[in-house]
Amino acid sequence: MRIALLGGTGDIGEGLALRLARDTSHEILIGSRDPEKARDAVAEYEGELADRTDEVDIKGFGNEMAADRADVVVLSVPPYYVGDTVEAVADSLDADSVLVTPAVGMQGDEDGLHYHPPDAGSVTELVAARAPDEVPVVGAFHNLAADALSNLDNELDLDTLVVADDDAAGDTVLTIANEVDGLRALEAGPLANAAEVESVTPLVINIAKYNEDMHDVGVKWT
Amino acid sequence: MRIALLGGTGDIGEGLALRLARDTSHEILIGSRDPEKARDAVAEYEGELADRTDEVDIKGFGNEMAADRADVVVLSVPPYYVGDTVEAVADSLDADSVLVTPAVGMQGDEDGLHYHPPDAGSVTELVAARAPDEVPVVGAFHNLAADALSNLDNELDLDTLVVADDDAAGDTVLTIANEVDGLRALEAGPLANAAEVESVTPLVINIAKYNEDMHDVGVKWT
Repeated sequence: MRIALLGGTGDIGEGLALRLARDTSHEILIGSRDPEKARDAVAEYEGELADRTDEVDIKGFGNEMAADRADVVVLSVPPYYVGDTVEAVADSLDADSVLVTPAVGMQGDEDGLHYHPPDAGSVTELVAARAPDEVPVVGAFHNLAADALSNLDNELDLDTLVVADDDAAGDTVLTIANEVDGLRALEAGPLANAAEVESVTPLVINIAKYNEDMHDVGVKWT
Repeated sequence: MRIALLGGTGDIGEGLALRLARDTSHEILIGSRDPEKARDAVAEYEGELADRTDEVDIKGFGNEMAADRADVVVLSVPPYYVGDTVEAVADSLDADSVLVTPAVGMQGDEDGLHYHPPDAGSVTELVAARAPDEVPVVGAFHNLAADALSNLDNELDLDTLVVADDDAAGDTVLTIANEVDGLRALEAGPLANAAEVESVTPLVINIAKYNEDMHDVGVKWT
C-alpha cells in the first residue's frame, strides 16, 4: 500500500515516516508544500534508516502529487493548516482514498495545555466536513509524542485510538497502525467520538510537565 | 487519617471504600444521605473484607457527620448531586479539610459517551466554585471503573491523575492514592487542567464499548 504523509517534513510526520518505513512494507510518500523540502527530508530519513532496515521505500513529492499517488493520506500538518491542506489535495482524493487526521487543537496558558476544538467539535470532524463527501476520513495517531516516534532507539509500548464512520477505512488504518512495532491500535467508535480522543493530547503534555521523568509520555488503555 | 466517602454506598464509593479499607491504614467513613443506608453498606463491605485483611476500620454516617469527622472528604456521588452535596456539608468543612471530587459530566448517544462539562469548565472546578473559599479542592479518581475497584480479586495496574491548586492538599491525595495496591497517582497540574482529565472517563467507556475483552478498561500513562 502507498501511504502519503502530507506535511511529512514536520515532527509528527517524521516520526510516522520513520516508524512506518522501518516496521512495515508499505511505500512511504513524504509530502510537503515544497517538493524540494520533501526530498531533503527523505534523504535525511533514509540516513536514519540506513542501518536499521534493508529496504527503504520512501520518496518525496509536493502534497498534491503525494496525495494523488497514495492509498492512505495522513494529514500530518499543524491543526491550523488542516483545512487548507484538505482543500489543496481534494482533487487528488476519491472514494478509494483513506484520509487520516492526527492533528489536535490546543491552547496553552500558565497552567498547561487545554483542548481547544474547532466549531466542528473536533479537528477530525472538521476534516470530514472539509473533505469531498465520498472520501472516508479516519482519526488516528493523535496522542503520540513526535520525539518518542522519531527516536528509533526508543522501543514503543503505546496505544493509538482510531475513530471512523467508514468501517473498511477504519480497518485499513487499524491494520497499518498495528504493523508498527510496539504500537497497538484500538477502536474508539465513530468520528463523533473524536473529541475525547483528541483531548488526550494536551493531557499527556500536562502529565509530562507536572511529573518527573515523564517526558514524551504516552498512553496504554489497560 | 480519616477519609469520608460521601455517597459511599454507590458504585465508585464502594470500590474506593473497599480498596482504601484493605490497602491502607486510614479510617474509612461511609456517608449517605440516609445514615441507615450507610450502615447497611458498611456491614456489606465488612463482609467483603473479612477474609482479606485483619483490621477493618470502616463506619457509616449521614453525609454531614461523615464530612465533619473526616480529614479528607471524597464526593463519590453522581455528578448531578455534586453541587447539592457540597452545600449540604459545607458547614462541616474547613481549611484543614481536603475535598476530593472524582465525578464527571457525560452525555450518551448511539455513538457512545461524550464529555459534557458544566459551565464552570469541569465538575472539579464546579466543586471549587461551590465549596467554601478556604476549603482546598482536589480532583482525583476520575477514570477508574467502579467494577474494577470493587472486585477485590482484580489486581489493579492503573493510574489516576490528581489536579489541585493547593499543593499540600494535592500531596495528601497523591499519597493516599499511591497507598492503594496497583494504583499510581500522577500530577496533572492545577484545577484549570481538570477538563482534560475528566474527559478520559467517557473515552475509556467508549474504548470498552468498541473493543473485545476491554470491559472495565483503565489507563496507564507510560
